[in-house]
Amino acid sequence: MQATKVAIIGMGTVGTGVARLLLDHGDRTARHAGRTLWLERVVVKRRDKGRAIDLPDGVLTDDLAEVTSHPAIRVVAQLIGGLEPARTITLRLLESGKDVVTANKALLAEHGPELFDRARALGRSIAFEASVAGGIPIITNISQCFSANQIESLHGILNGTSNFIMTRMEERGAGYDDAVREAQRLGYAEADPTLDVDGSDAAQKLAILAHLAFGARVHWSDIPRRGIDTLDAADMRYARELGYRIRLIAQANLRSAGIELLVSPTLVKMGRPMAEVREAYNAVSVVGDAVGNLFFHGLGAGQMPTASAVVADMIDTAVGRTAITFRTLELWSRREARVRPCGPEHQWRRFYLRINVVDRPGVLGEIAGILGKHLISIGSVIQHESVGGTPYVPLVIMTDIAGEKNLQAAMSEIDRLTSVHSPGIVLRVLD
Amino acid sequence: MQATKVAIIGMGTVGTGVARLLLDHGDRTARHAGRTLWLERVVVKRRDKGRAIDLPDGVLTDDLAEVTSHPAIRVVAQLIGGLEPARTITLRLLESGKDVVTANKALLAEHGPELFDRARALGRSIAFEASVAGGIPIITNISQCFSANQIESLHGILNGTSNFIMTRMEERGAGYDDAVREAQRLGYAEADPTLDVDGSDAAQKLAILAHLAFGARVHWSDIPRRGIDTLDAADMRYARELGYRIRLIAQANLRSAGIELLVSPTLVKMGRPMAEVREAYNAVSVVGDAVGNLFFHGLGAGQMPTASAVVADMIDTAVGRTAITFRTLELWSRREARVRPCGPEHQWRRFYLRINVVDRPGVLGEIAGILGKHLISIGSVIQHESVGGTPYVPLVIMTDIAGEKNLQAAMSEIDRLTSVHSPGIVLRVLD
Repeated sequence: MQATKVAIIGMGTVGTGVARLLLDHGDRTARHAGRTLWLERVVVKRRDKGRAIDLPDGVLTDDLAEVTSHPAIRVVAQLIGGLEPARTITLRLLESGKDVVTANKALLAEHGPELFDRARALGRSIAFEASVAGGIPIITNISQCFSANQIESLHGILNGTSNFIMTRMEERGAGYDDAVREAQRLGYAEADPTLDVDGSDAAQKLAILAHLAFGARVHWSDIPRRGIDTLDAADMRYARELGYRIRLIAQANLRSAGIELLVSPTLVKMGRPMAEVREAYNAVSVVGDAVGNLFFHGLGAGQMPTASAVVADMIDTAVGRTAITFRTLELWSRREARVRPCGPEHQWRRFYLRINVVDRPGVLGEIAGILGKHLISIGSVIQHESVGGTPYVPLVIMTDIAGEKNLQAAMSEIDRLTSVHSPGIVLRVLD
Repeated sequence: MQATKVAIIGMGTVGTGVARLLLDHGDRTARHAGRTLWLERVVVKRRDKGRAIDLPDGVLTDDLAEVTSHPAIRVVAQLIGGLEPARTITLRLLESGKDVVTANKALLAEHGPELFDRARALGRSIAFEASVAGGIPIITNISQCFSANQIESLHGILNGTSNFIMTRMEERGAGYDDAVREAQRLGYAEADPTLDVDGSDAAQKLAILAHLAFGARVHWSDIPRRGIDTLDAADMRYARELGYRIRLIAQANLRSAGIELLVSPTLVKMGRPMAEVREAYNAVSVVGDAVGNLFFHGLGAGQMPTASAVVADMIDTAVGRTAITFRTLELWSRREARVRPCGPEHQWRRFYLRINVVDRPGVLGEIAGILGKHLISIGSVIQHESVGGTPYVPLVIMTDIAGEKNLQAAMSEIDRLTSVHSPGIVLRVLD
């Protein structure tokens, strides 16, 4: 049987999982690729560090040149996180004639155009199924399986860490800080969870999906985003009273004026599959004009789900499928973007508002008046009695479909009212 | 831009949808395939029949030779249902050097080995994403995206017609015959719905998936199957009382003794995504040892979802990906089956039993005694009072996990009791 020599750069959680699949389960690649993937080298920073896996003699090295100058190694899984040295290493691999597989979404979201251009110029390929939604093969599905469609919208839960934390808050009444600590203890959150909980990680993944699905060229940092780090447990309770759960939803919707991109804690109707995604699971919903609504649910992170996606990409690269896909899709090429982001004046949806108001007659009328002036109808209202002797009570309003721009204008008026305590909370509703 | 000339055989619902995508949306294939798919010929039985679509002059023909002898046509969507002349036409297309795309699962389930062998010998390919679960790209996902996994189980709702009928019975209290008539009126069921409602269609699709996922070579007619045509609305009600819904589930589970294959009305716990699949939707759940549990939900039939899958296959074939996949997977080759079906003595699960018993003391004890003798524990029991003056009452039992063989033995004893009216109903429970 033919063998394709491969290498791994980086022996963290995912790298170890990939090595395990290659070393222990070579029969699978033989069966699905008609050839074995032979792990020739593993490059790490420090050779003397303890490893969770025994590598065959001569495989481990701390010298990248043992890969770049090895003529027989064709496919390399580049599994170092962060931007540098990941970027430089990826460029060196491409320049030495290797096809690259990566799980690093931050690298692609930041340097995708440079890396893809370079790969094209060199006649090489980059595969990146593992970079978004871990074990859910959403990259392949969007870029191959839905080719005959105009994708109209996609939305998903793309950050398992945030979803885990929110599930814990929702189901066990845990406070935000306790839930974060539990996520860290279980390995779902980094020591510094900022990029996960502030929406950056989801925005990076959304930027990649929006490019694949719509040809949008948007830098992830230009996507309006809010994370779960500012979310109040009270809003999760009020949402539940209204029949909704809050999830950190990344969404891209095609409008006539362009594409609407957003990462935000969002109310999702209970019973809808997206609302029932629990723990560290991810989910993606895609609507295509021919195929209709497709929903995917699976493990979005973790050692073996991510390694599963990386090895599938290595197989696709070894057999030649990736080269074809990479050539035909022209990702992040210098071609014009097919669609541009649209501003808030083109975005329409329902909103959840929580406004802390003085508990006296007439306040609801005052607020409803401002909303009405900005063409925003109220769908439902919850107002509980004040507790703990404060003079303020939370007024929870679910609007009908309204313009994002109108809502922003109305809220800035409402926040200036003397009967209103602190700036109101605005959350989006998924329709 | 490069153009690949293509043809369609058969202008039914799906063929019309495929022609529409090719003619109206050539920009999509250009974008995703780096080339246009040029519809050169459409072959139909009768040229003079009215069509739902206007084809360009010179495209429509009733002569297959206009395709087989056309040197520039490379990819042909063969969209005629049934076994003949579909089989003969497919062979003629392959022999004339065309790559074939098909949505005909009956053809593959019956003649897959012959057709795939012939295609291999001729250096051609057959793509068949549309043959199972319509718009859900389950074929690509299993055969490419999960290559690094040992798939441990898969189960799904693969027949939208049955699911539509059951949803109507469940949610609107419709009788079986009324629900079938509504499905026919809405185009979800054929004039003769037998193959859909008796489980044959789901078994054909399961045979294809089990071959892809496990290397099983099982003829669909050898898969134990029961359809919804024998299902009693009473069982749907009792299942609901126990917190379950009944769905027509096709499943393939890898056991140490081999593979367990089954198509059967099955109790699925409410709230589980598979239980909440409604109307004509399909869903598939796959468990891989690396990737974990993946769940897909989408439209399993209908003109445009199926056409979406067919055109994606035509693009894959035109760019060369299908040829690689087809060559490396060696589907239905003469290689030994990797796994064989296992008998009932190796199958363990929970069961739902409904036994019509004489309403007198001691009967439950008698039945429990027989179950116990066969090592079957009772999980829960429902017994309502008798209605309408009959001397019989339904005794509904949910067992703990038990052997399929033990259960069959116990039921044949129970059915012989004088206190039991008619043969008991046995349904499986999805765990």
